[in-house]
Amino acid sequence: MNVQFVDVASMSRWVSERGAERILLELARRIEADFARWQSFDKTPRIASHSADGVIELMPASDGHRYGFKYVNGHPKNPERGFQTVTAFGVLADVSNGYPTLLAEMTILTALRTAATSAMAAAHLARPGSRVMSLIGCGAQAEFQALAFSAIVGIEMIRFWDTDPHAMDKFERNAQALGLSITRARGPLDVTEGADIVTTCTADKKNATVLGDESVKAGLHINAIGGDCPGKTELDPCILQRSSVFVEYAPQTRVEGEIQNQPPDFPVTELWNVVSGRHPGRRSAGEITVFDSVGFAIEDFSALSYLAETVAGTDYATAVDLVAEPADPKDLFGLTTPRRLRLVAAGTSDQ
Amino acid sequence: MNVQFVDVASMSRWVSERGAERILLELARRIEADFARWQSFDKTPRIASHSADGVIELMPASDGHRYGFKYVNGHPKNPERGFQTVTAFGVLADVSNGYPTLLAEMTILTALRTAATSAMAAAHLARPGSRVMSLIGCGAQAEFQALAFSAIVGIEMIRFWDTDPHAMDKFERNAQALGLSITRARGPLDVTEGADIVTTCTADKKNATVLGDESVKAGLHINAIGGDCPGKTELDPCILQRSSVFVEYAPQTRVEGEIQNQPPDFPVTELWNVVSGRHPGRRSAGEITVFDSVGFAIEDFSALSYLAETVAGTDYATAVDLVAEPADPKDLFGLTTPRRLRLVAAGTSDQ
Repeated sequence: MNVQFVDVASMSRWVSERGAERILLELARRIEADFARWQSFDKTPRIASHSADGVIELMPASDGHRYGFKYVNGHPKNPERGFQTVTAFGVLADVSNGYPTLLAEMTILTALRTAATSAMAAAHLARPGSRVMSLIGCGAQAEFQALAFSAIVGIEMIRFWDTDPHAMDKFERNAQALGLSITRARGPLDVTEGADIVTTCTADKKNATVLGDESVKAGLHINAIGGDCPGKTELDPCILQRSSVFVEYAPQTRVEGEIQNQPPDFPVTELWNVVSGRHPGRRSAGEITVFDSVGFAIEDFSALSYLAETVAGTDYATAVDLVAEPADPKDLFGLTTPRRLRLVAAGTSDQ
Repeated sequence: MNVQFVDVASMSRWVSERGAERILLELARRIEADFARWQSFDKTPRIASHSADGVIELMPASDGHRYGFKYVNGHPKNPERGFQTVTAFGVLADVSNGYPTLLAEMTILTALRTAATSAMAAAHLARPGSRVMSLIGCGAQAEFQALAFSAIVGIEMIRFWDTDPHAMDKFERNAQALGLSITRARGPLDVTEGADIVTTCTADKKNATVLGDESVKAGLHINAIGGDCPGKTELDPCILQRSSVFVEYAPQTRVEGEIQNQPPDFPVTELWNVVSGRHPGRRSAGEITVFDSVGFAIEDFSALSYLAETVAGTDYATAVDLVAEPADPKDLFGLTTPRRLRLVAAGTSDQ
């Protein structure tokens, strides 16, 4: 009955030994399958607690059998102070008795699920034969995006750019070690040259324009993942006016996504409709498609479920003493009493 | 930077060594102090995921410096299957960088904070000189209520009743070991005889009547804690019509509490108004007061904060590897790469 725990060291080892590419592929498939059964989930926009420096969010979802939630923060100025922008952990529970079953670090797992979701969406929305991707933003998410688009979408060349040269160096080093073909752009305009897909993953908590309207050519797919909080967007709002916009869960994205800069009735399509064949997705080679992604709880549910099944019975998971288990479920108080006293009391009553 | 962890064994030992009575007193004081600064908290009704068997809830609160949340389930039929009705764990985090700082079991801690809150409310609302309490429901919460009302409110005699004789035996045994004066009632009417305060803490997920209107005499204080979910109440609705009703956080209680059976504009007073001196609380000896308690996130915030300060630097807390800490906060991917490969890659770039 103990809760299983996958700590940071075990998650690192799991990714390294199973392989990030394989995990991204399997996870994208899992997320796609869960999006296809979208209507069987209990869904809610995530619950955000905002402060001057960032946000802390809880993201629950349930399919009636399993319940999962993630704790995640987003603090754009953290790297300057030696902290990560995003950290996370998550929990799965058994809906039938409400007991937690898995606790897992999710800083690494969130990076994987975000990239897997982006690539899964692009596989449905980008032009077939897309080969060149522009990557704007080389922070913690960059390599995961590059690897996922290479493994799942067939991207063969990545042009990258970041305002922080140190982040570009880091990305270049990691991408070369992965054997990816990459080109260092000379600036924010140069990076979109020849792109089939543009991925924006920057972190500033402001309404920025990391992708201008003039850089967006017919047929482009835009994977916009950095705009994910009120007051935090990346795209020139004009781009959305001439694009078909796809979102995860509209009630959440209207508050957090790029479409927060559009009227409340701005037309969007929830991606699950495309995944389940209710909507065609891209309708022509010239159409501009935008995946206005903010991250949704079902993706974390998929990731935690996939992790749980993969690590069950292995040494990636250890038991953690998180849930009290009194011998008599109505005698919780007995757990707080020194043992001798409990034996005496039980003895008295048994006579 | 590691997250501190208080597991079940450590929580049991902490309560047993520090003393449940002392903890209840200190915790009631802490909750009272946090209720007095109610307006400095970011508050939200808890986020519930309902199923046929029960509910799983997330309860966040933040004072702008600390953020806390609790995971808690409520599954009334669990004890029949050997599980507890309620289990919980909680987390504190630093609002400035969003990093978790404390993970703690909260099944035991929730029982303590619920009892501390009940007693704190009764100290403000019950008639001065209240000495006799009726306890309806002898489940996991019973001893904690008995101890808190004895330590904080000055209750000298507890009459108790439960439909489950085994639960009554368990309560009798534990209460005698604690040295409390108790009287086993012969039934649901007998239990309220001579009561200054009635505490209802039953678990059935239905609109039950564990306290009838005819048992409620002038001057009574009712501590109603078992009605805490849509479709789960304990009081004859007529009682509320002739009582002054106090709640924790009205937007949550209107959905979950006894007042769910009343019109949406049924008058209630949030308890923090009484604690902070804005409302007199009980106005006469004959007034019937009801604390329609469902449990609110600030109480968990108080409990986690009190726990964190008390266990800091002791062996009640151990470090847990929950938050990834890459040397370069933008190089999360480096944590997923085998070390050798990372050294080679880093070497390449450093030349």
